[in-house]
Amino acid sequence: MGIETIKSYLIGRPFPSSMELHERLDKIRGLAVFASDPISSNAYATEAIMSVLILLGSAGLADTLPLALAVAGLVLLVIFSYTQTIMHYPMGGGSYRVSRDNLGVLPSLVAAGSLMTDYVLTVSVSVSAGIRATTSAFPNLEQHRVLLALLAIALITWINLRGVRESGTIFAIPTYAFVLGGLIVIIIGLVRMFGIFGAAPLAASSIVVPTAASLEGFAYTWLLLRAFAGGCTALTGIEAISDGVQAFKPPESKNAAQTMIVMGLMAMSLFIGITFLATHLGLLPDQAESVLSQLGRRVAGTGVLYYWLQISTTLILILAANTGFQDFPRLGSFLAQDGFLPRWMQNRGDRLVFSSGILVLALVSSLLVLLFQANEIAMLPLYALGVMMSFSLSQSGMFRLMGRIRHLKPGETLKTEITEVHYETGTWWKRIVNGTGAVTTSVVFVVLAMTKFRDGAWIVLLTIPILVFGFLAIHRHYQKVASSLRTRDLTIDDLSIVADVAVVPIADVHRGTLRALTYAKRLSKDVRAVCVTTSPEMHERILARWTRFPEITDSIRLVCIDYEYRDVIHPLVDYIEQINNAEFPDKLTTVVIPEFVAESLWERLLHNQTAWRLRHELAQHRDIVLINVPFHLQSVKEWRAERDKAQGPAPTGGGASDRSPSDGKSADEFHPDTPINSDN
Amino acid sequence: MGIETIKSYLIGRPFPSSMELHERLDKIRGLAVFASDPISSNAYATEAIMSVLILLGSAGLADTLPLALAVAGLVLLVIFSYTQTIMHYPMGGGSYRVSRDNLGVLPSLVAAGSLMTDYVLTVSVSVSAGIRATTSAFPNLEQHRVLLALLAIALITWINLRGVRESGTIFAIPTYAFVLGGLIVIIIGLVRMFGIFGAAPLAASSIVVPTAASLEGFAYTWLLLRAFAGGCTALTGIEAISDGVQAFKPPESKNAAQTMIVMGLMAMSLFIGITFLATHLGLLPDQAESVLSQLGRRVAGTGVLYYWLQISTTLILILAANTGFQDFPRLGSFLAQDGFLPRWMQNRGDRLVFSSGILVLALVSSLLVLLFQANEIAMLPLYALGVMMSFSLSQSGMFRLMGRIRHLKPGETLKTEITEVHYETGTWWKRIVNGTGAVTTSVVFVVLAMTKFRDGAWIVLLTIPILVFGFLAIHRHYQKVASSLRTRDLTIDDLSIVADVAVVPIADVHRGTLRALTYAKRLSKDVRAVCVTTSPEMHERILARWTRFPEITDSIRLVCIDYEYRDVIHPLVDYIEQINNAEFPDKLTTVVIPEFVAESLWERLLHNQTAWRLRHELAQHRDIVLINVPFHLQSVKEWRAERDKAQGPAPTGGGASDRSPSDGKSADEFHPDTPINSDN
Repeated sequence: MGIETIKSYLIGRPFPSSMELHERLDKIRGLAVFASDPISSNAYATEAIMSVLILLGSAGLADTLPLALAVAGLVLLVIFSYTQTIMHYPMGGGSYRVSRDNLGVLPSLVAAGSLMTDYVLTVSVSVSAGIRATTSAFPNLEQHRVLLALLAIALITWINLRGVRESGTIFAIPTYAFVLGGLIVIIIGLVRMFGIFGAAPLAASSIVVPTAASLEGFAYTWLLLRAFAGGCTALTGIEAISDGVQAFKPPESKNAAQTMIVMGLMAMSLFIGITFLATHLGLLPDQAESVLSQLGRRVAGTGVLYYWLQISTTLILILAANTGFQDFPRLGSFLAQDGFLPRWMQNRGDRLVFSSGILVLALVSSLLVLLFQANEIAMLPLYALGVMMSFSLSQSGMFRLMGRIRHLKPGETLKTEITEVHYETGTWWKRIVNGTGAVTTSVVFVVLAMTKFRDGAWIVLLTIPILVFGFLAIHRHYQKVASSLRTRDLTIDDLSIVADVAVVPIADVHRGTLRALTYAKRLSKDVRAVCVTTSPEMHERILARWTRFPEITDSIRLVCIDYEYRDVIHPLVDYIEQINNAEFPDKLTTVVIPEFVAESLWERLLHNQTAWRLRHELAQHRDIVLINVPFHLQSVKEWRAERDKAQGPAPTGGGASDRSPSDGKSADEFHPDTPINSDN
Repeated sequence: MGIETIKSYLIGRPFPSSMELHERLDKIRGLAVFASDPISSNAYATEAIMSVLILLGSAGLADTLPLALAVAGLVLLVIFSYTQTIMHYPMGGGSYRVSRDNLGVLPSLVAAGSLMTDYVLTVSVSVSAGIRATTSAFPNLEQHRVLLALLAIALITWINLRGVRESGTIFAIPTYAFVLGGLIVIIIGLVRMFGIFGAAPLAASSIVVPTAASLEGFAYTWLLLRAFAGGCTALTGIEAISDGVQAFKPPESKNAAQTMIVMGLMAMSLFIGITFLATHLGLLPDQAESVLSQLGRRVAGTGVLYYWLQISTTLILILAANTGFQDFPRLGSFLAQDGFLPRWMQNRGDRLVFSSGILVLALVSSLLVLLFQANEIAMLPLYALGVMMSFSLSQSGMFRLMGRIRHLKPGETLKTEITEVHYETGTWWKRIVNGTGAVTTSVVFVVLAMTKFRDGAWIVLLTIPILVFGFLAIHRHYQKVASSLRTRDLTIDDLSIVADVAVVPIADVHRGTLRALTYAKRLSKDVRAVCVTTSPEMHERILARWTRFPEITDSIRLVCIDYEYRDVIHPLVDYIEQINNAEFPDKLTTVVIPEFVAESLWERLLHNQTAWRLRHELAQHRDIVLINVPFHLQSVKEWRAERDKAQGPAPTGGGASDRSPSDGKSADEFHPDTPINSDN
């Protein structure tokens, strides 16, 4: 029970299943849990656009705000699409379920594979970025960044294993702190910029980067596309809520959709506000200081507000990883329910969270951190690809669904494979919005894949089909299991016949083996005690002792196999296989193994585990029933006392004579290392 | 079979037990196998004496030769004692068996513990010293010395696992190379020194170390004792042959005794020769270059002979570790035979060597190398203590034995616990020799323990009693096992009664569970199918499916346990324990577990191992018989085809109707993740 105690100490006492509803999130906590990823992208999204445009010099930065507005427009498109998803798929599932329901199994698996890749990257990238923010402040820690990142993952894992409400509370603080800090900076910035309330005006920067190259036509468009694709990192994490509808308190759909809209408005206010101020102040992307940090410093000075912003940025970056921990296990459970991932990924743990999904994610993202040495810059080219693919599929799915709803008459209901939809109005403009969204995110996907292919995007483009292949292989396996277990056309005759034989491997005649032999005699008239003898002395010893208990052994066949090697497992297995295959083909053969019950690790070490090895070998066989008859250390006297206490004294049996072995040895007469092998 | 193939590739194909004699050593190989340790000590024994005496300046070195002669005298005493041991204890066992037979169990265990400590140190120290010789030549490798030492241990382990004859052949080369090189250097040295054959005379060194301190009385004696104790490292490894008598070809005793004498003479010739030349040439102990190296260079110049000597020194030092690998496993097997170590240490492996002893030694000595970072200087204070303790006990034992033989009349035979001795003459002087030896080695032990206590000897002085305590604890355990298994006063009534009940934990009604239920019905009239239901839907599903096979289920009690947590193991175990403890106390309760046979690691991963966990929990129980009824993936069609092929078509049973479930689902109707737990 030691492990149980430690476990309950670490992750808290188990929750009964009925508590599931209580574990759910209200909107305030829901926003904090799901929004840290999309909101945290404000720490770098503006900069991502600017760092591409700066190739055209300061003048090129003029395109930043229009591009940011385009990104914000796309975000609103996607959010619109997802509120639709949430309302039509209240059981949650986002891209995976929508594609499955409207586009088919293969697209849905592509969506799932894309999302899983991205969730893993969310964790690795966010944690690494957060740790980098810390090590920038404390350069001494730089050498330990991999360790720190792993510890951060472990911490988030632990919090998530404890359950979603508690993690909601913990994560609420930095998310709201960041939003608040960001908004205050933007408001002060705007107030000062326009000189409202007579505030000290903000002067634009006078540093100008000369135009290095002048691009035209396709090259210029391509540059704009790249900058736009860079800004699209702001879209990561939006998917989260649609997968997690069931994590909200009822009414789930309504709460989730409202939370999603508030999240989008918050994130985009910050994004546009930061971009507007940054471009109007003429800030430049800079290796040494982030644009957000420059902005904070220019607007509010290097004071309390600045540090507030920086610290909450660090925290929200690390906690953005939590979005991955919310979504990956949940998506995993959907896939497991449908038989595309191992079934155990759908089981809720003691605290009602999908523990195995959480642990798998922690493991894979830790591996990634190790592999990339916690260098998020190296991981960024892999990032956001998956999410764009899933957006495209999800919006295409919604486009299709709206097409199906269009044909409904008022009051009519359409039952799809997964959900149930009713007549609704405005399907034509909803289709336009979804279609536009799908096309746009597809373009972004292609741009991302092409511009970042060599930097690592190829890894993702390779991983997604591998995952899909894996999902399909797992699914085939489960179908095979279901079809071989089903009882649909099963008759009684299809159940295997039990062969009338019981094989008992023994190494000596002692209390343990006698107990097993007695048990075996209940099972069959044809009991065979098999003994592998590795020396003539052992052979003789067995024969001599065998006759001492005629009441038990008279009706049992003793088979001695003389063997000139020391590994007795092989001849035993051969003998049993021969009985199973030749004597009783296609019947169940019973093997009774006398097994010493070690009461401590110490005892286990002292006894060689021949019984264990034999069981392991035989467990691979389809038609062998294994019976372990335990025996433990207790003297006959103790045993009798215990028995008599429990059931009154036993009648004195006919065989109650002194069975002293003829050679006069007593305590040392046996080599009871195992019940099976005890050659000396 | 993959592991088997790799294993047989690595250590060779298994040898039959009858080959044991062929695996034995002739005298040439025997000398090489057992002598590398004592002979290799010539690489440092002279120096060990000189490095103490140099405290008195060059003048003090004059005592070197007398002390070396004293050490040589002691070696001859010990060797004499051990040839006696070999002749009187032809089954081998040296110090451990001699002490057991003549002094009692406790002294014998002290001897065994001392020797084991020393064998482990032999390996760690010798390998580290050998690696240091290499890294002196190649300083680049210095940083990898721990790794190199571990690799060397792995190599020696591997050679030893392949069997003793092959290792004899491999080890013969460096041993004889070293002896030959050493003798040639000594002969050339003597020839040149005395100007025989008109050889160029050797001039004595003119460097003189002034006397720093002048000691008198006890202090001087103490210094001499310390120098003498230092020289006693030459005694390590002598014990080896007496333990390994049975590794020699017959006549074992004679061959072993002769080999020991030759070994002693060889080792001592080298020792005295080196010491004589070193002192007469006025060589000084030097941090940078060993005395042996100085001697080689002075006598033979830095030529072929010098390099021959140096390279063979390195090799013999590494191979000295092999003595440990010869002796530790053998001593382990003796202790295991007597029940003081786990029984599996007495089992010979595929190649007829004591594989487990070899592996234990490799593990412990590797740990020591890691702990001491392959620094043999730090380990030396721990060394040679054990061997002195065992010499003292062994010689005391022989003293006692001679005392017992003294009273025999001609023709009379004395049967001791272990051996059989006959009348012999000269017991009085043999007693004197053994007694003198015992006293001397005891004094050396005390001197070593006192002078090196703080440098690490305390570790050994602590380890030996701990080992003895462990031996005794293991022995008590085996006695308990023997007494609880013995059949001496056992009656038929003392074998547990089997309760007429069979519990079958199920999670669903499918082919696998039906097979298990059918099997259970053969065992008892009171079969109980237990199902832990974690949701109302699951409860209903089970009840509905249960009635589909009345031929099987009608006579079975279905117990549904509604449970509001997700960990179904606990209620199952509780239920079974309750049956076992309350309903049928002190009887054997049978539990039949339907178990999915995973045919690959891949399949194992896809099914949660509830069955495995349940079995693990129940295996701790004394009175629960566990039955695994396997089921595997095979459709009914395939199964029928196979059965019909094997035994002709089955008669159409009465129940051969279509068992389609009413809800019309087919392939997906079950969640066959495990036969026990499959809540969705």
